[in-house]
Amino acid sequence: MYQAYSYLSHLYCPKCSREYDASIPQHECACSAPLLAAYDMDALKIQFRKEAVMVRPPSIWRYHELLPVRTEKDIVSLGEGITPLLPVKKTGKRYDIEDLQLKDDSVLPSGSAEARGAAAGISKLKEYNVHDIVLSANGHAGASWALYGSRSSISSHVAMPVEAPLSVRKECAASGADLQLINGFIREAEDAASRASERHGWFDASPFKEPYRIEGQKTIGLELAEQLQWNLPDVIACPVGAGTSFIGLYKAIHELIELGWVRSAKIPKLVAVQTENCAPIVHAFDNKRTDAVPTPELYSAAFEISTGTSAGDFLVLDAIYKTKGAAVAVCEEDLLAEQRLITREEGIFSSPEGAAVFAGVRQLREENWIQREDRVVCINTAMGVKTPETIEGSTPILAPGDDW
Amino acid sequence: MYQAYSYLSHLYCPKCSREYDASIPQHECACSAPLLAAYDMDALKIQFRKEAVMVRPPSIWRYHELLPVRTEKDIVSLGEGITPLLPVKKTGKRYDIEDLQLKDDSVLPSGSAEARGAAAGISKLKEYNVHDIVLSANGHAGASWALYGSRSSISSHVAMPVEAPLSVRKECAASGADLQLINGFIREAEDAASRASERHGWFDASPFKEPYRIEGQKTIGLELAEQLQWNLPDVIACPVGAGTSFIGLYKAIHELIELGWVRSAKIPKLVAVQTENCAPIVHAFDNKRTDAVPTPELYSAAFEISTGTSAGDFLVLDAIYKTKGAAVAVCEEDLLAEQRLITREEGIFSSPEGAAVFAGVRQLREENWIQREDRVVCINTAMGVKTPETIEGSTPILAPGDDW
Repeated sequence: MYQAYSYLSHLYCPKCSREYDASIPQHECACSAPLLAAYDMDALKIQFRKEAVMVRPPSIWRYHELLPVRTEKDIVSLGEGITPLLPVKKTGKRYDIEDLQLKDDSVLPSGSAEARGAAAGISKLKEYNVHDIVLSANGHAGASWALYGSRSSISSHVAMPVEAPLSVRKECAASGADLQLINGFIREAEDAASRASERHGWFDASPFKEPYRIEGQKTIGLELAEQLQWNLPDVIACPVGAGTSFIGLYKAIHELIELGWVRSAKIPKLVAVQTENCAPIVHAFDNKRTDAVPTPELYSAAFEISTGTSAGDFLVLDAIYKTKGAAVAVCEEDLLAEQRLITREEGIFSSPEGAAVFAGVRQLREENWIQREDRVVCINTAMGVKTPETIEGSTPILAPGDDW
Repeated sequence: MYQAYSYLSHLYCPKCSREYDASIPQHECACSAPLLAAYDMDALKIQFRKEAVMVRPPSIWRYHELLPVRTEKDIVSLGEGITPLLPVKKTGKRYDIEDLQLKDDSVLPSGSAEARGAAAGISKLKEYNVHDIVLSANGHAGASWALYGSRSSISSHVAMPVEAPLSVRKECAASGADLQLINGFIREAEDAASRASERHGWFDASPFKEPYRIEGQKTIGLELAEQLQWNLPDVIACPVGAGTSFIGLYKAIHELIELGWVRSAKIPKLVAVQTENCAPIVHAFDNKRTDAVPTPELYSAAFEISTGTSAGDFLVLDAIYKTKGAAVAVCEEDLLAEQRLITREEGIFSSPEGAAVFAGVRQLREENWIQREDRVVCINTAMGVKTPETIEGSTPILAPGDDW
């Protein structure tokens, strides 16, 4: 029986159902909605075995049948995945949650979960023989795509808001990317990227402008299922900016159920976490809407998720409703306090957006929406050390010979 | 047959051969030399199988028989290891080395190789029921021990030179460690830690003051051998400050040969890389000495390895001589230039000390000490984004609507 490296069959629009050829580069649907990747699930059900996956080397590419790259030679890898799933017992005790765990995506190349999407997206663009990309990003994604771009000799042009953290700017600079800071927020950066794409003919790889980033982000969910011996938790909480990781998580769960690798009886409730400064998904959820109304962007310590509008909003909301999930906004004080508490309790210096997820889970536990018995997994999407400015305080200085 | 979790048998002094009981906490030998951990190799040869190791979860603890922690319950883990071994083909081509690879320890918790030693050391101290530790560090080790300390509820007191990078200071602060910046270099920080240990009764966990950090660092070598299908490369180059990773590498090779897991016929040449600003090992090697003369510490972009003296110097030099290796010093301009070149070529934003290793390898290739046919592995011990200040340059700022 012929075994393909990838079982990618085509692309489709989740809004209007139009289908697209995946053998040539595509952007969004003619109706402006993002395109999603479809796989030959009938063939996969017969030919793809989890037992085979589990003995492969630890990287996202162990799931290559369910990823879009057609041949191994086009894979652009920095060794991304499998990231640790860590019990956080002291924090669980503090929240009164018996089984609280953290999926720690901070230990990926570039120090963020965005390495997953960059690995998948850049590999696919290498397959398509694309040479120049442009993308807008609040931070980690821009740095990740720039680094993977360098590895594959694809030139990156990155538009970031001027408030983007120093770390991601330096990652772009070191990788030789053409980085432009935009005097505005992510909306203005998106606009700059879009215009530059038209003007220079650079391939627009901004979120939802190309379909494969979601496939990379999806591997968070694939790994999680494998790490829990193909049992899914009761609740998964994830920070939401543009929403590609969240949408990827939902897509992973769906595909795993279709494959019969996890039981469909109990789908995890997906929780989208945003900050009070920028919470379009939470407002839409509170008003039972199926799409989000754009909100103004405001600065947050969790700058990565300061996104007031996203072409994927309806997909994020759909995932929440279909899983009986929730959307929750946390305030700046809470997320900063949780960042320090979790680091002190667990030794995990999470990103501010990862800390926001914990603050959101604590809130949902206090409201009794999360039960004591629930198995809850929080996704930390980046390392805290990339945004050192969120940790305040000064350090004593001793002269040699001074008493400590 | 009884299978122990660890086959640790005792501690011994590599200088005077005195032996010590490993069931109680120990520091250095009475003769002041560092102590090393010994294992029951006769039992291991019979009971420890590489085939069993290879199917265990990807972390340093898959080698638990050859690590010092006696029971699994005492393991303090943040999911450390296995780190990627990446081909760096463009850089290899530039250096005219056919098989150049990078062992990328930047993707460990805390963003540095020091997570290995902290995991092993803190776990062992938890087994010993130690509650307070003090250590001196140039940076990454202090941050790593502070984070692992938090996870295990061991209080950390850390002395760092005042020039230590912001990232490691913030990692300590976030973890709740008692961090003191010392107005001086690592020597003054060592002195402060040593005096504080006496004054307060804190366990001194500075390099070579406790024997188990080396065991954690040793896993770099164990992973490397496994990743190369139990074949060792011709050359391994590693940055050397205190030298614990370098000594660990040599110890790993030795133990693997003793177990019969790798062929003893061809031991890799070990290359110690330092900076011209601080190169006691290189000076000793150039003068064929078996110990190093302390040198003044000077600021280097590779601050982590600005160490003018180390209790492990004689072990580093012994490893170099026994493997027909070398020691090489690189200048600041070279290491900074290589840092940018490698990031642009390979997408790996290495630390300045990791970049120094590449500059050293390039130098040894130019001198024809390294041959074109050699398989060469460079160890990158930390992520570049933790020291963003080494990447110079400013970024253009666009107003919304401006042409890119």
